[in-house]
Amino acid sequence: MTYFQNISKIKYEGPTSKNPFSFKYYNPEELVNGKTMEETLRFSVAYWHTFTADGSDPFGVGTMIRPWDQYKGLDLAKARVEAAFELFEKLNAPFFCFHDSDIAPEGNTLKETYDNLDPIVSMIKEYMKTSKTKLLWNTANMFTHPRYVHGAATTNNADVYAYAAAKVKKGLEIGKALGAENYVFWGGREGYETLLNTNMKLEQDNLARFFHMAIDYAKEIDFNVPFLIEPKPKEPTKHQYDFDVATGLAFLQKYDLQDYFKFNIEANHATLAGHTFEHELRVARINGMLGSVDANQGDTLIGWDTDEFPTDLYSTTLAMYEILLNGGLGKGGLNFDAKIRRASFEPEDLFHAHIAGMDAFAIGLKVANKLLQDRVLEDVIADRYSSFKEGIGLEVVEGKTDFRKLEEYALQLGEIKNVSGRQERLKATVNQYLLETLSTVSV
Amino acid sequence: MTYFQNISKIKYEGPTSKNPFSFKYYNPEELVNGKTMEETLRFSVAYWHTFTADGSDPFGVGTMIRPWDQYKGLDLAKARVEAAFELFEKLNAPFFCFHDSDIAPEGNTLKETYDNLDPIVSMIKEYMKTSKTKLLWNTANMFTHPRYVHGAATTNNADVYAYAAAKVKKGLEIGKALGAENYVFWGGREGYETLLNTNMKLEQDNLARFFHMAIDYAKEIDFNVPFLIEPKPKEPTKHQYDFDVATGLAFLQKYDLQDYFKFNIEANHATLAGHTFEHELRVARINGMLGSVDANQGDTLIGWDTDEFPTDLYSTTLAMYEILLNGGLGKGGLNFDAKIRRASFEPEDLFHAHIAGMDAFAIGLKVANKLLQDRVLEDVIADRYSSFKEGIGLEVVEGKTDFRKLEEYALQLGEIKNVSGRQERLKATVNQYLLETLSTVSV
Amino acid sequence: MTYFQNISKIKYEGPTSKNPFSFKYYNPEELVNGKTMEETLRFSVAYWHTFTADGSDPFGVGTMIRPWDQYKGLDLAKARVEAAFELFEKLNAPFFCFHDSDIAPEGNTLKETYDNLDPIVSMIKEYMKTSKTKLLWNTANMFTHPRYVHGAATTNNADVYAYAAAKVKKGLEIGKALGAENYVFWGGREGYETLLNTNMKLEQDNLARFFHMAIDYAKEIDFNVPFLIEPKPKEPTKHQYDFDVATGLAFLQKYDLQDYFKFNIEANHATLAGHTFEHELRVARINGMLGSVDANQGDTLIGWDTDEFPTDLYSTTLAMYEILLNGGLGKGGLNFDAKIRRASFEPEDLFHAHIAGMDAFAIGLKVANKLLQDRVLEDVIADRYSSFKEGIGLEVVEGKTDFRKLEEYALQLGEIKNVSGRQERLKATVNQYLLETLSTVSV
Amino acid sequence: MTYFQNISKIKYEGPTSKNPFSFKYYNPEELVNGKTMEETLRFSVAYWHTFTADGSDPFGVGTMIRPWDQYKGLDLAKARVEAAFELFEKLNAPFFCFHDSDIAPEGNTLKETYDNLDPIVSMIKEYMKTSKTKLLWNTANMFTHPRYVHGAATTNNADVYAYAAAKVKKGLEIGKALGAENYVFWGGREGYETLLNTNMKLEQDNLARFFHMAIDYAKEIDFNVPFLIEPKPKEPTKHQYDFDVATGLAFLQKYDLQDYFKFNIEANHATLAGHTFEHELRVARINGMLGSVDANQGDTLIGWDTDEFPTDLYSTTLAMYEILLNGGLGKGGLNFDAKIRRASFEPEDLFHAHIAGMDAFAIGLKVANKLLQDRVLEDVIADRYSSFKEGIGLEVVEGKTDFRKLEEYALQLGEIKNVSGRQERLKATVNQYLLETLSTVSV
Repeated sequence: MTYFQNISKIKYEGPTSKNPFSFKYYNPEELVNGKTMEETLRFSVAYWHTFTADGSDPFGVGTMIRPWDQYKGLDLAKARVEAAFELFEKLNAPFFCFHDSDIAPEGNTLKETYDNLDPIVSMIKEYMKTSKTKLLWNTANMFTHPRYVHGAATTNNADVYAYAAAKVKKGLEIGKALGAENYVFWGGREGYETLLNTNMKLEQDNLARFFHMAIDYAKEIDFNVPFLIEPKPKEPTKHQYDFDVATGLAFLQKYDLQDYFKFNIEANHATLAGHTFEHELRVARINGMLGSVDANQGDTLIGWDTDEFPTDLYSTTLAMYEILLNGGLGKGGLNFDAKIRRASFEPEDLFHAHIAGMDAFAIGLKVANKLLQDRVLEDVIADRYSSFKEGIGLEVVEGKTDFRKLEEYALQLGEIKNVSGRQERLKATVNQYLLETLSTVSV
Repeated sequence: MTYFQNISKIKYEGPTSKNPFSFKYYNPEELVNGKTMEETLRFSVAYWHTFTADGSDPFGVGTMIRPWDQYKGLDLAKARVEAAFELFEKLNAPFFCFHDSDIAPEGNTLKETYDNLDPIVSMIKEYMKTSKTKLLWNTANMFTHPRYVHGAATTNNADVYAYAAAKVKKGLEIGKALGAENYVFWGGREGYETLLNTNMKLEQDNLARFFHMAIDYAKEIDFNVPFLIEPKPKEPTKHQYDFDVATGLAFLQKYDLQDYFKFNIEANHATLAGHTFEHELRVARINGMLGSVDANQGDTLIGWDTDEFPTDLYSTTLAMYEILLNGGLGKGGLNFDAKIRRASFEPEDLFHAHIAGMDAFAIGLKVANKLLQDRVLEDVIADRYSSFKEGIGLEVVEGKTDFRKLEEYALQLGEIKNVSGRQERLKATVNQYLLETLSTVSV
Repeated sequence: MTYFQNISKIKYEGPTSKNPFSFKYYNPEELVNGKTMEETLRFSVAYWHTFTADGSDPFGVGTMIRPWDQYKGLDLAKARVEAAFELFEKLNAPFFCFHDSDIAPEGNTLKETYDNLDPIVSMIKEYMKTSKTKLLWNTANMFTHPRYVHGAATTNNADVYAYAAAKVKKGLEIGKALGAENYVFWGGREGYETLLNTNMKLEQDNLARFFHMAIDYAKEIDFNVPFLIEPKPKEPTKHQYDFDVATGLAFLQKYDLQDYFKFNIEANHATLAGHTFEHELRVARINGMLGSVDANQGDTLIGWDTDEFPTDLYSTTLAMYEILLNGGLGKGGLNFDAKIRRASFEPEDLFHAHIAGMDAFAIGLKVANKLLQDRVLEDVIADRYSSFKEGIGLEVVEGKTDFRKLEEYALQLGEIKNVSGRQERLKATVNQYLLETLSTVSV
Repeated sequence: MTYFQNISKIKYEGPTSKNPFSFKYYNPEELVNGKTMEETLRFSVAYWHTFTADGSDPFGVGTMIRPWDQYKGLDLAKARVEAAFELFEKLNAPFFCFHDSDIAPEGNTLKETYDNLDPIVSMIKEYMKTSKTKLLWNTANMFTHPRYVHGAATTNNADVYAYAAAKVKKGLEIGKALGAENYVFWGGREGYETLLNTNMKLEQDNLARFFHMAIDYAKEIDFNVPFLIEPKPKEPTKHQYDFDVATGLAFLQKYDLQDYFKFNIEANHATLAGHTFEHELRVARINGMLGSVDANQGDTLIGWDTDEFPTDLYSTTLAMYEILLNGGLGKGGLNFDAKIRRASFEPEDLFHAHIAGMDAFAIGLKVANKLLQDRVLEDVIADRYSSFKEGIGLEVVEGKTDFRKLEEYALQLGEIKNVSGRQERLKATVNQYLLETLSTVSV
């Protein structure tokens, strides 16, 4: 069956195309810095936003019109798989991601849930044989069901903890079965609603124990992929333990987990934590912990996770800048953890949205690459910090000095001269690169 | 004397220029929609940020290196005038703006303040005879001096109120003398710190009385220019009475002031109030109250007024879109109420910053104009609301219906069909226009 | 049938009671300033949060365990009415409020919806004959159903507009039938998602037309109660037109609606707009527009509407302070538009929550009343503004001066002396009143 | 000389006193849980806010009227010391804190700065011989002077780094000389303005080197006190590296510094980072890193550091709750890093403000202590997590299980039952304790 009948395979038609169902900037085969766009960008479709989300919000029910709405239960699950691979193929998407509960309905018992999952996993596996689309990562949904009301791996209820452990065990097995390139943990209920009733230490200790058991089991089944923590500061809970990358780092170090985990960084989660997207990428990068990206954008005038499709070219450029400096995303990718607006409820909006996001990151890649090729920022930075390449600065960096020597040096200094940070000029230059990189004329 | 010796007049060199001291996009004579860029954009240099600000912040003293720092008192005031007209000329700025206290030091008494102001006003007047640069607006600073600690026109101290009235009286006279095209009121202390000690009604009544007296006096001296209120929600006070455009509208209507006032809208004040810049422009526009613009940008992850030079091209594009729909700014202009970063302390940064801002708005103008020419959004909107052009919708608009008839109509409706809002596609289109408008190829 | 079997009627047991199912501070018959607490506080139970909400959030399904969950359709609607009046009686609640869709399920057509509503309205009417609990206000839900995806009275779709008009017409009739003391409008979808596709002026014009038709119809059916607008800045939409009280005032004045409307002010909506609860109450009060209150509280570290039951005694005290200065709420009341936390899912939590809120406002009432009786703040304020009671200040207030006279006065002033605002001392005094008002010892 | 002539020593007069210059709740000798209030609370006066701050803000100059304003230079520094010890004595303050630049003016060279500091340090030492007031901590101001425009220990300029090192070396010597009980680092410029010009990794590496050298030097001079990092997320910079406690923990662990540092936690910095005060205290406490407290409060509707004197009794209660659970603050204290409002400019406001803060924490102590004595929350928590005390839960905690066993256990579970979190009831109980603890009647 065909679900998106009126939509053909989306092709690259270049920046002047007026066909909304075409890529204007994303050209999968185009080489940027020696790799194809497809190889670098590693786009992934998020199963939940695209195939299960219905457009409901806290004040309104679903609005989405979906060609598979006529089905129920496992039939619906199967229809979604069919629709998914059709969309993957039409978008030419190299990857997808899912939570267990996206692909199959939760049963009343764990056993029933397994029984629902197994045939769908098999069906997906079958589809993947002939599809180019691979599984970037999967994860276990441990936040939707009422049983997780007080947390999953940080619950106060040992039965829930055990249940959650079983879900992750199954998730690791599914990941292994489908060749997932990563496994993700998002702790949507791993936090607290009020400190008044919370034993924070026990909850975090238990979370660490949970992760260690997950590592052990993954080793046991030979599923050796990066584990990714996805930080988010709050929502749904008042406070989530994986607040941001730095908080995650503190946790991973404390519990000797840092060798097994990297971060899956989401733009909107970054801004909810008071950071820019590029800040979180930078912190992860310089700590060797940049694993993958949930490619979306938020609205910083809005206090909740709007999960918009990424269209802000400043954000995509600065994100790709960090990613290129990281040598790419390795096994990670750019997963569109982004939902179309409730008011964009027609099936074709799914295509408009993905095209918008893929084009935005393609532009970001090209602009960032040009900035790096021309060493626009790198030269500024090298020059700014040059005093640490020689003399007293070098001694600092090499650990060859101490407070006595530094004081002695400082006492003989006259007025210290600083140089402007040139922020305004740098921003103007970024604008120039943004506008000119894609034109034929070189900047 | 020359203050910016190493800097020549800034010229338009086009988008591929690598000369940081050139305009890449702002070409004053270039026609856009039948008017020169200069005529439409009406750029203005803010005297305070450019000639008196020192880079201090709540945790640090001034950093700015200024060639006029060697002077003191009135000599400093004069040196700044000289430097100002040099910078205006080198930037080719058609307008400037000032507070009284920017151009001359406050004296210990009102009389002394007048005595300081008069020679500087004369000096500026003399300079203006041979300069192309005109005065967009002036205003009275009624927030810096300790006497305004509890407000100026909303103070609890009648002496302060009288003093403030005298300052505005003088300000109107100065505006008249220098041919100012508008007069601005920014109520930095017109608000409250705590409701516990505040008579809000008396304060607002007094503010209205103050404005009526200002109107009367301006008429008396035949200074018939638009009065502009500049909304800001907070900072320095806990709450300012001119919170945003809508709040200002409520106040002006209540006190029969709406015929004399328009709004001077600042981007960063908009975001501090929880709005986008374009929202505030839109609200003012559809109420016929869009007067002028303080062209800057904020950082929505930062909770104070950062007053950055505008470089965000989405913001400048959407702002120019509203301005073009408004038929331009009339007597208003784009005033760079923007301060260079504390770390951008060298004189040349003043040029980098203004160039960045002028180029950003030139780009915004061209992109917005192209969007309008092609009716990209206008056609979408016309189509979206077409149901109000006929039938029951037209009856609503023409006031020819009532709840009984509407119910009768509704009762016979089957399922109501809505059409997608297409936000993602529209955003992608804006990106395409942003990137392609300035290239030679048409979109 | 009994729904809350284990819970008896909640009685006042005084501040030292350890019985969680008792009022510690709310004593309905206790006189405060000549009126019983019940008369002044006019508590109202919100039907939606208490009888229909299920505890779902954007990341999780419902958690609430409700004794009426076994029913479906109209049977469920009827069970809820039974449970409601049982709870009203056990809480001794003088009022309740509802949206049409809270009391009966929406049908597939307007007719079907009416048919669902009518028997339930009759049933409620019957219950009200023997119950003390009255209807504070009702309203029409015009935000949940997909048809309102682009707005109701501000939709782009004339069919939706007509449908919404019919819903309000029916709502007015229901209000009339049940003796509602007010009628409320909350415009949850009356705003925009993006300016790119929005005709703001037409939408606001249509909203004003809608309100005028509502006024006409209410007159026609002789339903002469205050109409209340409930401001909210955003959520669910990006921007709602009734942003805050001031924005509402601007709208009402512009469209000549101010004589028919007052405001229903919600604490959490105030903070989402960047205001304190008491600020919004103050603005409404000094404009004679304070109608009713949605008594809840938000979490200012959280960016969405948490709608928590009110427990912050500073907030309840300062709210009651404004309400007492307003001479009470008139026909309005304190409606608990508050939802128990998702993790408080047991039926008894409904009682704990209402007790917490009722006690919190009872305390607020007593503390505010004592502050007023002792003229703690009023004397400070009278003294602070005393300069406007005589001399030049009085001339300002009486409109007997002008800028020339004020300048003359200011020119002869020496150094102006201000007096401290004493914020810290006032806050300490409020603490003292909070702690001591309820003890037997007078402050 | 006497600076606060009209103010006598502040005495405890009890909750019904109407004397504003008395403690109503802080009774230094009163025993709470076996220790005097003075021993537990360890209040400290912040030298900067109290003796050097002038009430200026970004839009206004200083307003504070101070009896020592007549002096200049070193004479001013000396007058402040005299005034300080007078205020300490009149407030009966056991501790004070300062930055080097608070007590003596910075010179043009490091040598000159030392020469300014030395006599004042001697003078303070002399005063301390006869005063009960001790030095809680001192620190080096490395943010006010323009040389720190790009940072101090994270500067790009090696000369600045050396200068900063010398300042800290001197600070450690001063701390040693005056018997400071801690040494504090607040990195007001240790962060970035824009990532575009920032080498974050080098900056953080250098910061770690700086700390290690500080540790070495402190050991060398036998100044063995806790080093305290004071987290703040931003302001003055766009982003500060010590964002919050968790971020600090990540840094300290990465660079092997965790054994030498604890945290100095400020309430307003917590809220700027999106956390509650009690959250930050909790995170520090459960990691054994709670060192000291900067006792103030912010305004969560305001986006900058308002540094208000603490009066919110919820905040002081929950803070004292964490502190009591921590077994007290050890060598730390409650330092009033709080500034009186710009409009509270009279000297007596300094007393009103400290009294307000000291009373607020005294109340917090008593309420928190009663909550703990009655095990109000502790019993709730013990019960909530009881499933981890036995069976499968105990196996989790003891590390005796794995994913296979947990799955086996989960597979045999029926429906999992959770228990309500009871947030609303707990909040009501906290209100009851707040109001009743200080009355003579027991709750």
